[in-house]
Amino acid sequence: MSSVPQTQPSPELVFDTLNAYQRTAALKGAIQLDAFTAIGEGKTTAKTIAARCQTSERGMRILCDYLVIIGFLTKQGSTYGLTADSAMFLDRRSPAYLGSAEQFLTSPMLTDGFKDVAAVVRKGGEIMSAHGTMDPNHPVWVDFAHAMAPMMAMPADMIAKLVGAPAGANWKVLDIAAGHGLFGIAIAQQNPNATIVAADWPSVLEVAKSHAAKAGVSARYTTLPGSAFETDFGAGYDIVLLTNFLHHFDIATCEKLLRKVHAALKPGGRAVTLEFVPNEDRISPPTAAAFSMIMLGTTEAGDAYTFSEYDRMFHNAGFSHSELDAIGPFPSRVILSYK
Amino acid sequence: MSSVPQTQPSPELVFDTLNAYQRTAALKGAIQLDAFTAIGEGKTTAKTIAARCQTSERGMRILCDYLVIIGFLTKQGSTYGLTADSAMFLDRRSPAYLGSAEQFLTSPMLTDGFKDVAAVVRKGGEIMSAHGTMDPNHPVWVDFAHAMAPMMAMPADMIAKLVGAPAGANWKVLDIAAGHGLFGIAIAQQNPNATIVAADWPSVLEVAKSHAAKAGVSARYTTLPGSAFETDFGAGYDIVLLTNFLHHFDIATCEKLLRKVHAALKPGGRAVTLEFVPNEDRISPPTAAAFSMIMLGTTEAGDAYTFSEYDRMFHNAGFSHSELDAIGPFPSRVILSYK
Repeated sequence: MSSVPQTQPSPELVFDTLNAYQRTAALKGAIQLDAFTAIGEGKTTAKTIAARCQTSERGMRILCDYLVIIGFLTKQGSTYGLTADSAMFLDRRSPAYLGSAEQFLTSPMLTDGFKDVAAVVRKGGEIMSAHGTMDPNHPVWVDFAHAMAPMMAMPADMIAKLVGAPAGANWKVLDIAAGHGLFGIAIAQQNPNATIVAADWPSVLEVAKSHAAKAGVSARYTTLPGSAFETDFGAGYDIVLLTNFLHHFDIATCEKLLRKVHAALKPGGRAVTLEFVPNEDRISPPTAAAFSMIMLGTTEAGDAYTFSEYDRMFHNAGFSHSELDAIGPFPSRVILSYK
Repeated sequence: MSSVPQTQPSPELVFDTLNAYQRTAALKGAIQLDAFTAIGEGKTTAKTIAARCQTSERGMRILCDYLVIIGFLTKQGSTYGLTADSAMFLDRRSPAYLGSAEQFLTSPMLTDGFKDVAAVVRKGGEIMSAHGTMDPNHPVWVDFAHAMAPMMAMPADMIAKLVGAPAGANWKVLDIAAGHGLFGIAIAQQNPNATIVAADWPSVLEVAKSHAAKAGVSARYTTLPGSAFETDFGAGYDIVLLTNFLHHFDIATCEKLLRKVHAALKPGGRAVTLEFVPNEDRISPPTAAAFSMIMLGTTEAGDAYTFSEYDRMFHNAGFSHSELDAIGPFPSRVILSYK
């Protein structure tokens, strides 16, 4: 939390970083108490927020001050306010509310991967189980599908626009590791002539199907249960979606899958990859680059690959060329790869 | 880890903060693997650091990139380097090495206080036990005395200078909640005419006595075992040290102790308080203000008090006036209060 440039060495960053777990804990607590919604409703002092959230005033005052310090609230005198991010993503009344991401991101399924980083670094991969979260039918992916859907709604909408869904062409779309299904569903919503085939574990596809039904696209939504590495995808797809999937695997495994994707696409078809893509220096931009640590702690050999690495994988799998696109304010990037 | 000013809302800060516990875990892992020492010794690529620390190269590459992102290393091409802070505080060969702070700051004794922040905020204080870390003879304070001593060596030295120890006056010094003992010992080292009385739990005083022996000041070092609230301090002190102690208690309890301190001082004597002292807004500077959250999670009624609050406490206890001083690059502040 060092706020001024240091001219002499200071232990402040060491102290702040050894305490950084408290940032996670405090945000999680504030989401659980619905403090952001209370402030959005106009309760703006520690006393009134505490009354609305049924907490002590002292505890709420300290929590709110801390949320100001770590960037989630504003404070003028003793009046708290929401930041633009908090109003959009942490007030339960916002359509873009993503408080549910807390349940997945702070679940033991993920946090256990960081209980002993020294051991993880020694081994070079996750130490939670034989296959970590990559186990077939691992229940984490059903939780993921439920909890992360709100965080993905806006990117899904933006990607559907980016690939030209509103133009209404007759499209056959394969959504690999569909999860909550939102990426394929957004295309179906924007393009009434698109049919979607969603591939994932059977238990996860139930979540995707319920989202498709809610979006009113069930008639154009079919499913393909099983492992993406073993299922027969069929052929003739205009678009294959690979959203937040390739980062789980090593390069050889990715290329094996991409050859299968290439075979499933029709000539001129596109693979649409959504990923955290750090710059070639692997240390910027920070959120995308830091995703590599999450892959170290929770997978055997996954990574946050750079664009040049993805470009090479797609090239080796037979694609003619790939391009990198941004999606609004989101830290993820989209790679369009052409057959 | 958002690095650019956002013009539209982004979920990036939510995502980064829900993952912030990984910063703690990664720094802890790097300290345990002694990665900073390896780099200080000249191993500057993932491959050579990994060889020195006996880890996988992949794991070390991802760890080092992450340490760059969170501010502990530099990177040029594929060459890592220590920052000024890391070289001074995290290279085991540095006299100011404070890697041992990791053991205390990430021990369950503290981290358990943040397992359920919502419950802590509801109650308005720690939920770990009837009295939390304030229990008499709680073993956490022996661990603290050992682990935090390196982090306090420089501030102890600076405070001894600040109060004028090198002038060599005949001083009788009381060190309340002495812990590792370093604050009193630094005065004894700089002032050969100072005698130190260290007060703390008996088990903790053993640590202080061993530090006094190592510093060669045992002959002028006596101890006063027991609770600071019950022990008879005696009288006629020139200086009473109150380092990192008052933050554990509510204002009424602090004032009760300060009246006892006032009575123990000779006329013109000074109480020397070391604390995280946030500005009156309670949200700056960030490290000092955030300390309030640590007190919420680990004490019944402690806080990071502002200077006006401390000034009032000392005034109410009979002190004539108090002044606030900085100590070099440290986020803590010193309050000198005059009898």
